[in-house]
Amino acid sequence: MNTADLGLPVEVPSTALFTDQYELTMLQAALKAGTAERRSVFEVFTRRLPHGRRYGVVGGTGRVLDAVTNFRFDAAVLAFLGERGIVDEPTLKWLADYRFQGDIWGYPEGEVYFPGSPLLRVEGSFAECVLLETVILSILNHDSAIAAAASRMSSAAGGRPLIEMGARRTHELAAVAAARAAYVGGFATTSDLAAGFRYGIPTVGTSAHAFTLLHDQERDAFRAQVDALGPDTTLLVDTYDVEEAVRTAVEVAGPGLGAVRIDSGDLLLVAHRVRQQLDELGATKTRIVVTSDLDEYAIASLAAAPVDAYGVGTQLVTGSGHPTCSMVYKLVARAESADPAAELVPVAKKSSSGKTSIGGRKWAARRLDKYGVAEAEVVGTGPVPEELADRQLLVQLVKGGEVVAREPLDAARERHIAARGNLPLSATQLSRGEPVIPTEYLHLPSGS
Amino acid sequence: MNTADLGLPVEVPSTALFTDQYELTMLQAALKAGTAERRSVFEVFTRRLPHGRRYGVVGGTGRVLDAVTNFRFDAAVLAFLGERGIVDEPTLKWLADYRFQGDIWGYPEGEVYFPGSPLLRVEGSFAECVLLETVILSILNHDSAIAAAASRMSSAAGGRPLIEMGARRTHELAAVAAARAAYVGGFATTSDLAAGFRYGIPTVGTSAHAFTLLHDQERDAFRAQVDALGPDTTLLVDTYDVEEAVRTAVEVAGPGLGAVRIDSGDLLLVAHRVRQQLDELGATKTRIVVTSDLDEYAIASLAAAPVDAYGVGTQLVTGSGHPTCSMVYKLVARAESADPAAELVPVAKKSSSGKTSIGGRKWAARRLDKYGVAEAEVVGTGPVPEELADRQLLVQLVKGGEVVAREPLDAARERHIAARGNLPLSATQLSRGEPVIPTEYLHLPSGS
Repeated sequence: MNTADLGLPVEVPSTALFTDQYELTMLQAALKAGTAERRSVFEVFTRRLPHGRRYGVVGGTGRVLDAVTNFRFDAAVLAFLGERGIVDEPTLKWLADYRFQGDIWGYPEGEVYFPGSPLLRVEGSFAECVLLETVILSILNHDSAIAAAASRMSSAAGGRPLIEMGARRTHELAAVAAARAAYVGGFATTSDLAAGFRYGIPTVGTSAHAFTLLHDQERDAFRAQVDALGPDTTLLVDTYDVEEAVRTAVEVAGPGLGAVRIDSGDLLLVAHRVRQQLDELGATKTRIVVTSDLDEYAIASLAAAPVDAYGVGTQLVTGSGHPTCSMVYKLVARAESADPAAELVPVAKKSSSGKTSIGGRKWAARRLDKYGVAEAEVVGTGPVPEELADRQLLVQLVKGGEVVAREPLDAARERHIAARGNLPLSATQLSRGEPVIPTEYLHLPSGS
Repeated sequence: MNTADLGLPVEVPSTALFTDQYELTMLQAALKAGTAERRSVFEVFTRRLPHGRRYGVVGGTGRVLDAVTNFRFDAAVLAFLGERGIVDEPTLKWLADYRFQGDIWGYPEGEVYFPGSPLLRVEGSFAECVLLETVILSILNHDSAIAAAASRMSSAAGGRPLIEMGARRTHELAAVAAARAAYVGGFATTSDLAAGFRYGIPTVGTSAHAFTLLHDQERDAFRAQVDALGPDTTLLVDTYDVEEAVRTAVEVAGPGLGAVRIDSGDLLLVAHRVRQQLDELGATKTRIVVTSDLDEYAIASLAAAPVDAYGVGTQLVTGSGHPTCSMVYKLVARAESADPAAELVPVAKKSSSGKTSIGGRKWAARRLDKYGVAEAEVVGTGPVPEELADRQLLVQLVKGGEVVAREPLDAARERHIAARGNLPLSATQLSRGEPVIPTEYLHLPSGS
């Protein structure tokens, strides 16, 4: 079953309205001025990582490709834009035929990034590229924030599996994207059925406190659950008294009980006690799942506890303190015409405010030391030095409007593990610090 | 044109998969145990406001009503649940006929709330109510977080209009809900076209730095924009040198120029200089819009500056430091059967962890002092005291499965202004503090 064909609303009929109005008014003005077709290069980058973070994680690239493919202005959308007077008739006519026909290069999903990394490069006419700004940034800023938090949590968890269960803490469709990004960042499963449906991520979940409270006795609830889901289920043991619940759970399910879940209290202490009690009851293979307001620090603090899996909600879907990235989409070069031979002129905002950019169409490569460990993010314009040629980070994602780099989600997940593993060891320290490798600039145009 | 009929993906074919798996496994176990039809009462509440906040704002109620109405399990969804083995055949059969037929009461959208306020009360069988948990919490937790941030910003802005422009900083569909919640919280307009399309919120936007950089001279860009959009447009004046840009802008557009936008630098200083320059150039009616990483504190700090409108992005869509609320959905009472005459027994988790709830079906009222200012949020079970009868906060939203309280978004926006205006003056202080009125509990069942 190809879930992508099943019509979940995540796969939207058109992404064209996920757009700030000014993209369309700029288009109208450029069409009128005759500058709309100037060949242009836009780049996505961030000036900084969230405070104290050592690396960023590219999340959402696959969703960007879907969004670009679906970026169409159908009759209903055009009617809306016309009736509201947002753009004029010539612009509406231009939009009706809109299909992105340019090229997109980018860091592949799951790759790590640093300040200044040119994460995505969109090339084509000004008109066709400028329209994509908002939706591309929405996706990358959201999904990369979640992927980065997930990566820190999965580092902290060591080899223990992480369950994404934050759907109730974020917008219902952001939750689906969050489960996807969490999987890229190293999570194993999700509680979100829509994420299972749309992206094939393994789903899990058994019961909440309400189920225990529905029944007259905790024992009745456990029996009902085991009857329905089998003894391999996970019983929630902290509705009343944990010790009594664990005893009841093993009595009802037998020593083959799959797992118990603890959702409150001092998890370190309770996990030790529950492990000892389970072992004494002969339930030596019964796992312990903990799920109470965890973040990467709480996960790390449980490293020595007898915990078999972590469920993470709020802190995952809110990016563990950083719910968005500061990625921007900037025009970095443009020609005087649509002619492919016309010279690309680097351009950049030049103000005294610190919000400057670096002009020019860029490449990026990760330089390794003699042990194969990353030592710098090298970003440049002009020719790529020979020694960096096979360490380049940008890959072609879209060619002449056609997506050329679709991949299964597992590929992004595996890429992330490899990319993180190539960073200096201090990358996975949870404490605040500088980016774990510096960004170096090469061959930049003078004056920038 | 009824935008709700135009098929934007925000109006989804089914919300049934925006659900944690355990809601379905609990259903299966309860069906098997014969407890699924027990009459039940679930309530949404929060144990605390985000640290230092004085009040919360209910956002998303209208979206909850849409979600409940659309909560259906169609063939594709049932096939997915069956093939993955998430629930068994009897459960699938039950789900195929699912329609919520119970009652929902709640604080109307835009109303303020406090710790313990029973924001939403869902009544029906355990089975029909438990399924709605995840999607209801997703919507209320997200939208209320944005509405609360918007409310603080609109207080800080006084009468000056606020523009929502955060789409690029959050998930593309969360952005649409955020624009809606911002409007409820007091924002005037949005840059997000999908929000204009779906909810009829006024949209705005003219140009970005890329448009200036596309052209050979700033003057060319300004002329192109004025030619296309008229002199009443907003010109962005901080791509190169602000003073020169303002001079050029007025030369190109004339003294009838609509507005200039400043997106970087020391806004207080720059706004004063630009105002003086505009006045000297005769452009005394040209407005000044500022848009650089604003939050409620930055807005407040510009109260004395000659600023005419604020554009807010990141901090709005991320809830200004609190991107989610901590609302939970708890079973608070249930009967032994489906019989409407069967006694409702209060239930609550009883652990030593602090995550306790208060059992029983609750009412809430806001007690006023003799000046008509709110002095307490009174939450109780049992009969409502006579003096509070006409100050009750919960209204019926759904009756026997039918939505009975749809309203235009402007009604929620106006309600919020009124509700906030009835709070003690210190409610709108931006500094951290306690909830501006205490929550008092009345007639609670013994032992809770």
